[in-house]
Amino acid sequence: MLTEKLSAYSEMTDRKLGELLSADVIPPVLAESMAYSVFSGGKRLRPSLCMAACEFCGGTAKDALLPACAIELIHTYSLIHDDLPAMDNDDFRRGKPSNHKAFGEANAILAGDGLQSLAFAVLSECTSHDAGKYIARGAFEMVMGQSMDVSTCGGAEQLTALQDYKTAALFRAAVGAGASCARANGRQIEALLAFASAYGMLFQITDDILDFEGSAETLGKSVGKDAAAGKTTFVTVYGLDGAKTYAQNYAREAKKAIADAGGDPALFLELIDYTLKRRA
Amino acid sequence: MLTEKLSAYSEMTDRKLGELLSADVIPPVLAESMAYSVFSGGKRLRPSLCMAACEFCGGTAKDALLPACAIELIHTYSLIHDDLPAMDNDDFRRGKPSNHKAFGEANAILAGDGLQSLAFAVLSECTSHDAGKYIARGAFEMVMGQSMDVSTCGGAEQLTALQDYKTAALFRAAVGAGASCARANGRQIEALLAFASAYGMLFQITDDILDFEGSAETLGKSVGKDAAAGKTTFVTVYGLDGAKTYAQNYAREAKKAIADAGGDPALFLELIDYTLKRRA
Repeated sequence: MLTEKLSAYSEMTDRKLGELLSADVIPPVLAESMAYSVFSGGKRLRPSLCMAACEFCGGTAKDALLPACAIELIHTYSLIHDDLPAMDNDDFRRGKPSNHKAFGEANAILAGDGLQSLAFAVLSECTSHDAGKYIARGAFEMVMGQSMDVSTCGGAEQLTALQDYKTAALFRAAVGAGASCARANGRQIEALLAFASAYGMLFQITDDILDFEGSAETLGKSVGKDAAAGKTTFVTVYGLDGAKTYAQNYAREAKKAIADAGGDPALFLELIDYTLKRRA
Repeated sequence: MLTEKLSAYSEMTDRKLGELLSADVIPPVLAESMAYSVFSGGKRLRPSLCMAACEFCGGTAKDALLPACAIELIHTYSLIHDDLPAMDNDDFRRGKPSNHKAFGEANAILAGDGLQSLAFAVLSECTSHDAGKYIARGAFEMVMGQSMDVSTCGGAEQLTALQDYKTAALFRAAVGAGASCARANGRQIEALLAFASAYGMLFQITDDILDFEGSAETLGKSVGKDAAAGKTTFVTVYGLDGAKTYAQNYAREAKKAIADAGGDPALFLELIDYTLKRRA
């Protein structure tokens, strides 16, 4: 079920994003640079969570299509800015030159800025006012997490807050906005937000594990890219086995939260298991 | 009247911006870097226009305080990103080190990103849904203008569109959002938007004239900083006298628009004359 559902969500999202980015009025370089990163093979996980949350609460996937696209635009802007030389200085993203390598730094900065503005322009067409609230809060929390990350102000004691802001915040935005579009009740929204918090941590930790294993292999040494860059992750703090235990615990927490949310949890449970076992 | 009114608007804006930026939860570096640029001596022109438009249409200044602050946050983010090495590479802004000089490039990128997110978080608390629409559109148009500016794709024939997006768009956002908060009728909003389009051009052209005169003096030569940087402005295209004529014409257009808008135009008329004659 998971794969079919995610494909359907992903196709809906892609079609709408294509429409949004092809407005005649957008200057060619900006349109190209935004589209380059928006259509670079992302799995549309956040939009899918948004639409799944809407269906979970009795709405249709289409009801949540605008916030779903807005979240993907925000996620994409954050990746473009993360890759910049002054940030992570990554020349590649998903096997392609990163945005600033393809279009230059100035255009990459503007592509990111424009994607964030466009996200809120899209949201302003959404009939659920609360969807905008969840997404604006998530977008700001994400920047708070990035700020903690680059200033490496926190050691282990701030690690959970950092990862929660950096990653889980946008998952909360996704389910909160999706549930709002279904006019869900407060109890269901709370449960979905709890799911998103735990699932977001699970996702981030498995990402760090994959990054560690991948880069340890490539670099032929026992530290990953993050540790080499002085970043604090669950792997650098608790080691590989410790991180895996945390992932298991967050998976359990996410399952409990969704089981308590008063809807059909099947898709979310599958997604949790899939994430726990993912290899790329 | 103008000076008193602008001081009152400016004080209201400053107080609210202070509250918004002092939330405990914001990581210290992010809070400091955002506040550094938000409180760096800006004249709060855009928030003032927002509140003035609201009063013009029968509301109070306070009714438009949230969108007024949101616009200033967006304006500030754009200045931070404009100054970055990959963009205009300006080390100073209003006589102080620019944000990336004070906090480093990574923090400056994040301060800008965070200010944009925060703007929309603030707007999501505003009861006028349309205020968000005007501001999101203005924010996106501003990026379109910046993109045209850095890619210098247009010569003289694109100059008006470029300056309209780069500068007038946020003035339109200001009056559109302000008028929406007063639940203004469509005719009044249209007239205010027409005023903002003309006033925005007037403002940008007088800015270019000041920049030209200032830098021509400093550099001791007959080209300004913009021309030296290969930028296209009304001064580089039409010369100083030509640009002054355009400024006069836009001032006339702005006056006509506001006189047709069915409210007390006194403040706006004073502002137009003030802008036409400004020396800094």
